[in-house]
Amino acid sequence: MRYHRIPDETIRRLPVYLRGLLSSAEQGHERISSKDLAEFLGVNPWQVRKDFSYFGGFGTRGVGYEVDNLARQIKKILRLDIVKRAALVGVGNLGSAVLAYSGFRMYGLEIAAAFDINPKRIGRKINDVRIEDASKLQTLKRRKIELAIIAVPRDDAQKTADSLVKAGVRGILNFSPCYISVPKKVKVITIDIAMDLARLPYYIPAG
Amino acid sequence: MRYHRIPDETIRRLPVYLRGLLSSAEQGHERISSKDLAEFLGVNPWQVRKDFSYFGGFGTRGVGYEVDNLARQIKKILRLDIVKRAALVGVGNLGSAVLAYSGFRMYGLEIAAAFDINPKRIGRKINDVRIEDASKLQTLKRRKIELAIIAVPRDDAQKTADSLVKAGVRGILNFSPCYISVPKKVKVITIDIAMDLARLPYYIPAG
Repeated sequence: MRYHRIPDETIRRLPVYLRGLLSSAEQGHERISSKDLAEFLGVNPWQVRKDFSYFGGFGTRGVGYEVDNLARQIKKILRLDIVKRAALVGVGNLGSAVLAYSGFRMYGLEIAAAFDINPKRIGRKINDVRIEDASKLQTLKRRKIELAIIAVPRDDAQKTADSLVKAGVRGILNFSPCYISVPKKVKVITIDIAMDLARLPYYIPAG
Repeated sequence: MRYHRIPDETIRRLPVYLRGLLSSAEQGHERISSKDLAEFLGVNPWQVRKDFSYFGGFGTRGVGYEVDNLARQIKKILRLDIVKRAALVGVGNLGSAVLAYSGFRMYGLEIAAAFDINPKRIGRKINDVRIEDASKLQTLKRRKIELAIIAVPRDDAQKTADSLVKAGVRGILNFSPCYISVPKKVKVITIDIAMDLARLPYYIPAG
């Protein structure tokens, strides 16, 4: 099932809600109100209600949302109901941090492969993932890995993206601070940490 | 001047527009249409026009926006018109990647200090920044550094945030995958790379 009318901004917030719901379930809660969920996540309650309205009203006034049910629905919408495997390309400082990061599992995500061009890195293991030679990227097709994370130097990003697309990858999380051009059928999300830092001063009026 | 009515979602996109405008200026363009800017950034043209409408119509139909003027306005709104200095706490793999990253300057941002608790890291220099002992965080007040990036292990994140708030920090970019609790006057933006990856499968219908 595809929910065509959900806006991108709502999709962006769904993983945030999912994390809140999973934490809430861990703490033993069976139900949560939009107000409590919003407070826990530091967002507006009306925003939560509006976002949830796009995929049907699971909440009951005064009783709140069933935590497990709502988490399951969000996972289904995000297509995270089946474990999704991703490949990492570039295991420098940033790539190593990504590989060592334990937060993927919560969302049903797994970094199942890692690649680098540096012979000193190839063969090393981080978090049970053995770093492979980047010339082997085309094996992703056979391994049915359709998600990839690019953490290579800026000048290698486009070339890496081209190889990934050729290997059948359909979704790319790009950490290189540049635009990469891909066919329309491939979705790219670019993360630029400088951009996130650049939003902070707005919220800090001169003292 | 404060532009109270600009929604957070628009603020989130302003650094994206700013990057597009600065790249465009670098390429020698004096004017750019919302359509071209949108295409360059891979966003909807109506979104660009709507976002820009919040801070006044700088564009002229058929002529487009003055690149330099619009970039300056956006910098002013984001309070990036004066160089903002930030401190980094935690210089492991992720922190090292942040320190080595060259993309901050474009936004008028500078990582001016770095801290760690590991004696092996203290004293080392990355990108001309000498890593200091984390017990010296309180010097940030004297140095008038009000922005900080937290890249410490999850269990140390809250403690680090508490020290930063005590040192007068008013904006925190948090890379630790957990919520940190701060006084209302302090703004926290949390980055969870797993969350960004979790948005990708939505855009990839079963093949």
